[in-house]
Amino acid sequence: MIQIGDSASLSKTFTEKDVLAFAEISGDQNPVHLDADFAASTPFKKQLVHGMLTAGLISAVLGMKLPGPGSIYLKQELNFKAPVFFGDTITATVTVTKAREDKPIVTLKTVCTNQDEVVVIEGEAVLLIQR
Amino acid sequence: MIQIGDSASLSKTFTEKDVLAFAEISGDQNPVHLDADFAASTPFKKQLVHGMLTAGLISAVLGMKLPGPGSIYLKQELNFKAPVFFGDTITATVTVTKAREDKPIVTLKTVCTNQDEVVVIEGEAVLLIQR
Repeated sequence: MIQIGDSASLSKTFTEKDVLAFAEISGDQNPVHLDADFAASTPFKKQLVHGMLTAGLISAVLGMKLPGPGSIYLKQELNFKAPVFFGDTITATVTVTKAREDKPIVTLKTVCTNQDEVVVIEGEAVLLIQR
Repeated sequence: MIQIGDSASLSKTFTEKDVLAFAEISGDQNPVHLDADFAASTPFKKQLVHGMLTAGLISAVLGMKLPGPGSIYLKQELNFKAPVFFGDTITATVTVTKAREDKPIVTLKTVCTNQDEVVVIEGEAVLLIQR
């Protein structure tokens, strides 16, 4: 039984290989991700991991741990607070904030931090769960 | 110069291969995506394309077309309205709803539809753009 305050995390180090694979399957070839020379001209100076790829780690902890297998996304809000660079180790943590009694629907706070404990994404997810 | 009402689209057919690649790079191995037998026991009966993979097409149209190369995500809200199955052709359309004059920041409505013109994702994006 899922309870308010339940929490789970998952960590992953994002590599250039991951970024190239995501660019391929999503079609997002934005040079801020793929082109070192272009990236050097941006405020962040270095190539960025796609925000939606980093957000995939939130999807992973939701789908694998809490609420876990069988859960289906209804909503995800993503606030991108800081850049993610190649080689950064990101930890996605999800915490249950609401569990409806009338329907199998839960709301979770979703936060991604890097290896320096800087918040890179914060937001909220709503999922339909298996009972 | 980006103006309110500007719009762009991108389409892609999502395959099982895309889903397997996204499961690999994100770590999201939820059986609703990967296991046909498990999926048969869910309300949708068939394996689903990851919501965050479908949302990658929004990232692609934002990063490639409008606002285009160099733009960086500040926020994305995703409301998952209908399932995406293997073989579905999704069109992501983004439309500028707000362009700040004081800062290089734009807001866009983001909608994904399938080949039957059913809305599968709707939401809003905020991006920092290159000027």
